[in-house]
Order: sequence, then structure tokens, then C-alpha cells
Amino acid sequence: MITLHGFAASNYYNIVKHALLYKGIPFQEDLLYAGSDDLLTVSPVGKVPAITMPDGFNLSESNVICDFLEETYPEKPLYPTDAAERATVRQIMKIAELYFELPSRRLIPYVFSGTQAPNAVKEEVRQVLGRGIIAMNRLCQFSPWIAGEQFTMADIYVHHVNTIVNAFGATQLEWDVLAEVDGMKEWNKAMSETDIAKSVQADSQANMPEFMQHVKALIQAANAK
Amino acid sequence: MITLHGFAASNYYNIVKHALLYKGIPFQEDLLYAGSDDLLTVSPVGKVPAITMPDGFNLSESNVICDFLEETYPEKPLYPTDAAERATVRQIMKIAELYFELPSRRLIPYVFSGTQAPNAVKEEVRQVLGRGIIAMNRLCQFSPWIAGEQFTMADIYVHHVNTIVNAFGATQLEWDVLAEVDGMKEWNKAMSETDIAKSVQADSQANMPEFMQHVKALIQAANAK
Repeated sequence: MITLHGFAASNYYNIVKHALLYKGIPFQEDLLYAGSDDLLTVSPVGKVPAITMPDGFNLSESNVICDFLEETYPEKPLYPTDAAERATVRQIMKIAELYFELPSRRLIPYVFSGTQAPNAVKEEVRQVLGRGIIAMNRLCQFSPWIAGEQFTMADIYVHHVNTIVNAFGATQLEWDVLAEVDGMKEWNKAMSETDIAKSVQADSQANMPEFMQHVKALIQAANAK
Repeated sequence: MITLHGFAASNYYNIVKHALLYKGIPFQEDLLYAGSDDLLTVSPVGKVPAITMPDGFNLSESNVICDFLEETYPEKPLYPTDAAERATVRQIMKIAELYFELPSRRLIPYVFSGTQAPNAVKEEVRQVLGRGIIAMNRLCQFSPWIAGEQFTMADIYVHHVNTIVNAFGATQLEWDVLAEVDGMKEWNKAMSETDIAKSVQADSQANMPEFMQHVKALIQAANAK
């Protein structure tokens, strides 16, 4: 059986978990937090998520894992068969990562430490999100799924990216980022009402207090240095 | 024929150009700089590189283009046939992007404006590069190619990422980053001596003065605001 390493409060972890559940691939969860020594044995950068295959093969990086799962378990496909459509799905995922996820994540340290992000940082984040909004408006279909008629990995990926945009980008900048992409909010709501998304979200909320304890301990350890 | 949009001084552009040359796919180059209106018509974020296929399909994001080229032109393969080996190739590319390329790029604005990067920024960049070094030491084979016996997209990708690591990360931090990965410098030298790498590099150097004029004009425009 596949082992999925990480913790349920991580949106990256939930991308892979969502794909595994959608495809009906049996897996077990191994609760590990970023930076743990055990995680370093399966992930070269000590990142969440990582997977271990039944033959012992380890793999990290969410979108690399997504591609690998699709190639290894082609049933219930999450990528279109047409190469150009598949490339567009990957392009949506990549732009969500670079222009929605990563800039929003820059605000996390300020939220966790209870401090205000400097205006220069906020302005940089705002600019990157702005480029993402233009690109997502051009690329996303929402008819009804993000890349068109077929439900794809981009639906799973962007939905979980959006939790970070909402939790950090939108709140810190007081800016409803998702509302700037035509159709995004309605689609995101529909995604969140699917059974798998609900179950993943419930696990995430259940893990949140323990995860926040873990974050607090890391901050205290850093401050004690 | 495929059109490759962008400019030769861009290492992202050169990843795609190198792959096209290696595979022997006919293409024409369309000189466009980041931020140009013409580029925005073919790339949703106005980024270099972008490609336009003979049927008018446009695609951006270097590694998405790499995957698409492989799937569309499978001859002279640049990815292994085994799914796990292919995933490892993609993992190496991804880690080079996140932990070598992106942190090194954070130092570019300081170099271009002739100012010193603040120590806090340098320290952050140093830490991210440090994680990349650990990961690359674990993942790279250099036997003789980066992922083993087969020459892959990861050889092309990391070689061109390394130009940014050397030009900005290494010089600004006074740290020979590539020397920290066992076998990396020898492999990188061998890569740079291949005919395609030499030709790509010659085009890059020929474009550099015009590109730097372009950068200067952008900085002057920004300062005039």
C-alpha cells in the first residue's frame, strides 16, 4: 500500500490525498511534520507531502506526485488525453502555484508570529497575485470544471491552493482575491461541497490544533536561540 | 513551425531552446522581452519563454513546455520510460527550480540596480540554497548524467538553472554553491562543452548587451515614476 507522509492541515498534503481518494487508490497516512528527522528519510528537502510506494520508492513535490500517480494509476484519469489540453491543465496548476500559492505563503510567518507584514512585502505580494488574477482569468473555463468539461487535477490543485489564498493573502491584504477571477468563487464553492473535499477538509480541521501547537513550539525554539 | 517567443539572455528561454535543438524540432525565434504587449498576447502572465504551435496553440512555463514537447515529439526521448525514474527526473527539475533558481533570482534586482542585498535577504537565500544542496546531493547521480545513464530533461534544465546560481547566488553570497554538490561542477562543465550548450550560450552572450539596455530602460522608467 502507498504511504502518504505529512499532516492534514497542509494544503499541499491535501492535494495528493484528494487525488488518491478520487482515484480510489488504497493508502495509509503517516503523520509527520515538516522538519522531522523521519520526514528527511523519505523526502530530500524534508517537505510535506512525500509518498512511499509499496516497493520502497520515495517521492516528493506535490505536482510531481500528481503526475506520477496519474501515470501509475491511469484509471479515473485526472488529465485529458489530448497533449495540448493536458499542457493547459499543467499550466493552470503551475500558475496557481507561482502566482497564488507562493506569494500568499510569504505572509504566513507574519500571521503565525502575530506581527504585521511590512508594506513593501504586502505590495510585492499584491503585485504577484495581480499577475495571477490576469492569467487565471485567461486560462480558467469553469464550464463546469476549471479546464472545461472534464474534472482534472487542476480542479483538485487550485481548490487546495485557494485555502492558502483565502487564509493568508485575502485576510492580510483585505482583498477578496478569488472574486477577481470570473467564476472562481462559484466553482470553488461547488468543489468544497464534493464529498471528498468535505472529508479532506474535516481531517484538516481536526489536525489544526496539533499543527498550531507544533508551530508555536518551533517559534519558541527559534526565539530561544 | 513552432515559434519560440522570448530572448536568448533568459535561462528559462534557453531550457526550451536546448530541448528543441536536442530533439531536432524545427522552430523559429521571436525576439520579445518580458512585459511587452506582444508577449501578453501569447503568454497569460507575459513571461518568457512561450511557444506557439503551428495550429496556434500557445503555452507558457518552461517545465510545462518541456513535458508538452516530450509528449508531442517523443523521438529522442528526454524522459525515462519507467514512471518512477521519470518522476525522479521531474523531482530534480522541481527542486532545482524551487531551491536553486528562485532564491538566486531574489538577488537579481540588487545586482541590476547596483545595490547591496540586505543581510536578512542574503541569509534567507543562503538557507534555501542550503536545503537545495542537501536535496541535490541525495537525488543527483552524475553517472554520467544527472539522473543516471540516460541524458534527460533534468540535464538540460539544471544546467541552465546553474547559470543563474553562478551569476547571482554564488557571486552575491561569495559562495561556490555548485561545489557543494558532489560531482555537480564536473558534470556542469561537461554539459557546457556539448555543441548545443555552446551554441545556446553564444546566442545568450550575443543578446546580453541589448537585454541589459532593456533592463536599464525599465529601471529608469521605474525611478522616473
